[in-house]
Amino acid sequence: MQIGICLYGFGNVGREFVRVLVAKSGYLKSRHQIEVILQSIVTSKGGIVRPEGFGAGELLRLAAEGRLREHPEFCEHSPEQLERWVPRNAGGDMPRVIVDATWSDLATGEPGLSRLRRACELGCHIITLNKAPLVADFDGLVAAARENSVQLKFSGATAAGLPTIDTIRVSLAGAEVTSIEGIMNSTTNYILTAMSDEGLSYEDALNRTVAMGLAESETNRDVAGIDTACKVLILANAAMNAGKKLSDVKINGIADITRRDIARWAMEGRSVKLVGKAVRQNGDVVIEVGPAAIPHRDFFAQVREDAKAVKFTTDLFGELTMVGGSGGLTAAAGSALRDLVNLAGALRP
Amino acid sequence: MQIGICLYGFGNVGREFVRVLVAKSGYLKSRHQIEVILQSIVTSKGGIVRPEGFGAGELLRLAAEGRLREHPEFCEHSPEQLERWVPRNAGGDMPRVIVDATWSDLATGEPGLSRLRRACELGCHIITLNKAPLVADFDGLVAAARENSVQLKFSGATAAGLPTIDTIRVSLAGAEVTSIEGIMNSTTNYILTAMSDEGLSYEDALNRTVAMGLAESETNRDVAGIDTACKVLILANAAMNAGKKLSDVKINGIADITRRDIARWAMEGRSVKLVGKAVRQNGDVVIEVGPAAIPHRDFFAQVREDAKAVKFTTDLFGELTMVGGSGGLTAAAGSALRDLVNLAGALRP
Repeated sequence: MQIGICLYGFGNVGREFVRVLVAKSGYLKSRHQIEVILQSIVTSKGGIVRPEGFGAGELLRLAAEGRLREHPEFCEHSPEQLERWVPRNAGGDMPRVIVDATWSDLATGEPGLSRLRRACELGCHIITLNKAPLVADFDGLVAAARENSVQLKFSGATAAGLPTIDTIRVSLAGAEVTSIEGIMNSTTNYILTAMSDEGLSYEDALNRTVAMGLAESETNRDVAGIDTACKVLILANAAMNAGKKLSDVKINGIADITRRDIARWAMEGRSVKLVGKAVRQNGDVVIEVGPAAIPHRDFFAQVREDAKAVKFTTDLFGELTMVGGSGGLTAAAGSALRDLVNLAGALRP
Repeated sequence: MQIGICLYGFGNVGREFVRVLVAKSGYLKSRHQIEVILQSIVTSKGGIVRPEGFGAGELLRLAAEGRLREHPEFCEHSPEQLERWVPRNAGGDMPRVIVDATWSDLATGEPGLSRLRRACELGCHIITLNKAPLVADFDGLVAAARENSVQLKFSGATAAGLPTIDTIRVSLAGAEVTSIEGIMNSTTNYILTAMSDEGLSYEDALNRTVAMGLAESETNRDVAGIDTACKVLILANAAMNAGKKLSDVKINGIADITRRDIARWAMEGRSVKLVGKAVRQNGDVVIEVGPAAIPHRDFFAQVREDAKAVKFTTDLFGELTMVGGSGGLTAAAGSALRDLVNLAGALRP
């Protein structure tokens, strides 16, 4: 099965996705009978369209250099005119997939939201690593995908390496989710671990995550709990039919936590973690994010440094806790690849 | 979508499956548009066929009493004459599924193996909670299912509540599994925890698991490590293409572990667990089961009493650890329900 890909975004994640695609092309063919044809790469200034696909060597060179604009075929044009960037099927019915590895505004979801809606209308399947469109209008985007009979995949938008959404939809299929709790942001978990284990101040720990490249440029989204809130919100809307907006989430960050707080909790045998929670209560779903002091014996207390974890409670299977290694670029890119494999599986007759 | 079910086995798990089916029938319809019609129940002595399905009240009564043979419609006949027990489709093309909740011999896989092969030939999809046919001839059964274009689901055969096989196939899709490690047997984990926490002797701890109903009648399968070996073997064959037999697995049980061993490990900051492992090595897959003394800080050390856990290592996502609550009847029955939902999803056009 051939699949055409239009990649939006050529930053760290987009370029890693290209590297992963090249590295796994043999495996995708032999194990899943999937041949991926990367047909276009689009950035905020324009892009390159190559309906027949790029060669592996050229892709690796582009990914290493990252300077798409210097490519002779680079065409300056608005990225939002999708007809230009998503090649029409040349006489075949090869499925096309837009992989969105860009950033959008959390409040409006734009420019990603309009882009993904337009992709639906064009019959283009969607893999988004971009959380914002899902945060801004989850139900609308799901409806648009359904109306246009396209797949909407977003496992990379809700903790990447930690396979949250697929676990709920497949591994817990048939069960009703009564709560979701998670340590879902690497930066804040690293900060809290460093404050606790090494006695760093909040500021020093934060600076280290920036120096390590762990924190994204907008560290405020991380430390204020907004990134965690977005992830729990998406999961609650997807798995619990919560129908909630970001403004419905009660959010507390970690900026006020002192070394003294941490020492006090340690004396009580507890570690502090930034926890996002969605709990079904009286027919509604309550979503909250905030620091929680967790007994050492609890699995969450053992989730250290940049690791993430999530716990689902369901009617049939009780509690299921998953702990994943670091997020990292490869896991983020890998989550788009996972979505691609599952998407192809669903399209197969 | 209507689905016809033929249930083999009416012991604890089979009856719990019936209860779960009844309890979740509304949810299955509203959330997944699945209407389950239980058309037959078969035991080793015979069974009941009801092509139009049983009513909910009757099913709950049967499940509570468990005395199928006293039912006026009970028909004594060999369970292995499948044509009798799997009703032909009366003019429709409703998919039919055999749910096998019986026991078979581990060495031969019989009588389950021949039964499931015959089900394939009849175009009947398979959900097996019965490990033995998978242990005896995994590749053969997979091939038979493929040849006959039927689905083969077995999430309940490899740790039930802990969603191992679906995690590999979907949540880790695109990634290559380099190792699988697990604490996959509740009885042995309970025994080791009781010896460690309460200072019980091996015999006292074993007797308690029998009294609690945790241990299956053949406790030897548990404590000798055979049950764990079967589960790891199935996972390795399914996820790593290992192509192995039970005789390829090096198995050590827990019967020789003394309180003194446990005390010594505790002094070293370690807990003993029965761990099954499948590791890719030099193009081969090596599978082993045996007690392992694990540092307290490791997640596996925190897996206590009758909980289970598994850790997958993959190229794209690093390490993923999952810890599930107790197995229990509901989780076992729930895993058959999960398979049913995923099976129906795959059949949908």
